[in-house]
Amino acid sequence: MTENLQNDLILRACNKLPVERTPVWIMRQAGRYLPEYRKVRKKADFLTMCKTPELAAEVTLQPIEIIGVDAAIIFSDILVIPEAMGMELQMLEGQGPNFLNPIRNKTDFRNLKKIDAESSLKYVLDAISLVKRELNGRVPLIGFSGSPWTLLTYMVEGKGSKNFSNVKKLIFNEPELAHEILDFIADAVTNYLSAQIESGVNLVQIFDTWGGILSPSHFEEFSLRYISHVIQKLKRDGQPVILFAKGMHDFVKLANSGADVISVDWTVNIGEVRKITGSKVALQGNLDPAVLYANFSTIETETEKVLRSYGYGSGHIFNLGHGILPDVNPENAKFLVDYIKNNSSKYHKEIEI
Amino acid sequence: MTENLQNDLILRACNKLPVERTPVWIMRQAGRYLPEYRKVRKKADFLTMCKTPELAAEVTLQPIEIIGVDAAIIFSDILVIPEAMGMELQMLEGQGPNFLNPIRNKTDFRNLKKIDAESSLKYVLDAISLVKRELNGRVPLIGFSGSPWTLLTYMVEGKGSKNFSNVKKLIFNEPELAHEILDFIADAVTNYLSAQIESGVNLVQIFDTWGGILSPSHFEEFSLRYISHVIQKLKRDGQPVILFAKGMHDFVKLANSGADVISVDWTVNIGEVRKITGSKVALQGNLDPAVLYANFSTIETETEKVLRSYGYGSGHIFNLGHGILPDVNPENAKFLVDYIKNNSSKYHKEIEI
Repeated sequence: MTENLQNDLILRACNKLPVERTPVWIMRQAGRYLPEYRKVRKKADFLTMCKTPELAAEVTLQPIEIIGVDAAIIFSDILVIPEAMGMELQMLEGQGPNFLNPIRNKTDFRNLKKIDAESSLKYVLDAISLVKRELNGRVPLIGFSGSPWTLLTYMVEGKGSKNFSNVKKLIFNEPELAHEILDFIADAVTNYLSAQIESGVNLVQIFDTWGGILSPSHFEEFSLRYISHVIQKLKRDGQPVILFAKGMHDFVKLANSGADVISVDWTVNIGEVRKITGSKVALQGNLDPAVLYANFSTIETETEKVLRSYGYGSGHIFNLGHGILPDVNPENAKFLVDYIKNNSSKYHKEIEI
Repeated sequence: MTENLQNDLILRACNKLPVERTPVWIMRQAGRYLPEYRKVRKKADFLTMCKTPELAAEVTLQPIEIIGVDAAIIFSDILVIPEAMGMELQMLEGQGPNFLNPIRNKTDFRNLKKIDAESSLKYVLDAISLVKRELNGRVPLIGFSGSPWTLLTYMVEGKGSKNFSNVKKLIFNEPELAHEILDFIADAVTNYLSAQIESGVNLVQIFDTWGGILSPSHFEEFSLRYISHVIQKLKRDGQPVILFAKGMHDFVKLANSGADVISVDWTVNIGEVRKITGSKVALQGNLDPAVLYANFSTIETETEKVLRSYGYGSGHIFNLGHGILPDVNPENAKFLVDYIKNNSSKYHKEIEI
């Protein structure tokens, strides 16, 4: 990491080093709430956008200029891994992703291809290179992947699910097969994230969107174990790892995963999480995304609540507790970011002394 | 409560009085997984079943004989309150409930009728009387209602929602109106639950299905406050209150609601919750409903984990962490109940001494 970044606030916060103010970015910041994004999206469907480095790079950069966030996150989707493994992915407007042939047994699993990100996910790496060139050191670039468990869930269910019956049947009735597939996916995730780092991302986030559907012991066995494997085996040179396990509130366990930062959803008090996790990790979060529906005054009050809850000192990356909602007014997102830029230095006074 | 019950295990567990074994019932035990239920359901649509005391009573009693649970729960739906207030409710097969004219502003709200359960929800009270007669003291009967917040959420969204944008906009942009409606709903819930108790239910459960979508401070302000109001104002003569706030994991807060029992979903360790809440409340739960997809041996292992996690002594009502899934084999539900009946007395040894 010899790169000279003009704004490395997020990287310092990940390592709990002093910062002048709290850094901020927004999950799904390159997305549908931006008219500029929707304009690009008109030219190509979602998957084509992911697979066209110029388009992916273009929308990745938009929120840096329009919203003024402290990091870019590469525009992509967590499902590109299973797609690269040979699973046919359909993304129908307003319906969410759908794998036409979900993995339900050993034979389905045997048909999956082992991926090598350098070839099968080259389009993501090319987009990263393009973005890095365009950013020219202005802010760090975040890479990401789904967790092995979350990818397994999508691969087995095929699409969004209410009860996750199929993946639950798999882990309860064929735990050995489940572990075999998870191992296979974990290798792919490690390879993919390492390649992203190699291509220039400055930190990575692992999304465990579906860890929260498991009981504590099954979360350890089927999700956390594989996240830890990935983090351990990742080829990195100081690039921090953020872990976002939505709905999973055993923060002591998450803090022991090896991640540098735990991303916290809005249903918990981030100050309480800080008390529980102590100096072990930095924290990211955790404004209710729906607060951005409100007027400026409410956004201010609720944002200040989060800042105050985390309290004094470094180790806080401001973010929403989940992705920005598609019908939010971009002005409100910009107001939020500006508010943090202008009002969070009071929580970092110690560096002025 | 001069009624003589042959099996009052659940009532004793609610009050943390000694029991010979852990009592058990299953959320949604009168439901689609039972062929006997589906047979009745063929004769009438869901809402007609709710509104026909004979049919509601029939399916309420089914799991007592077929599965052998330690309590009946009146067959009904939490949405009967808004329906009685005048909101037209559509229940389409496989689509979930839908209010044709959701509440979005003051005028919509003003059009709602104040309910009096004795007249507008008489069909539920009649079903309760029928069930009580048929039960003849074999096991207690549970009544229930949605929490004010959960009812508000359905009334404002109209149907199931991913982001709950409409109800969030209401609380952030018109908090006074939200509180006015919540007050109105809380009165209805109090009246309705009091009438159920008057008609003979031995305990009640409040379902706060959507409390978990709120930040901690908003949960207190918009949900818990009104649950506490209801519990305080309830006309009862020793009938315990169970609170199930799905996804809400601040158990200290829940234990201070005034509820006698907190129902716990499967994503937390019930033994940890017991440590946190101490002697304040009894606990209900918390097997992952999907465990009932597994073979008997796995059901046994996972059930024993829950029993062991709660540990020794009274105050535990065994249940799933959420409703039983519609495609579960009834044999598995029966196996679970039998297992608890035959294997939980070891956690209640103190009464043998």
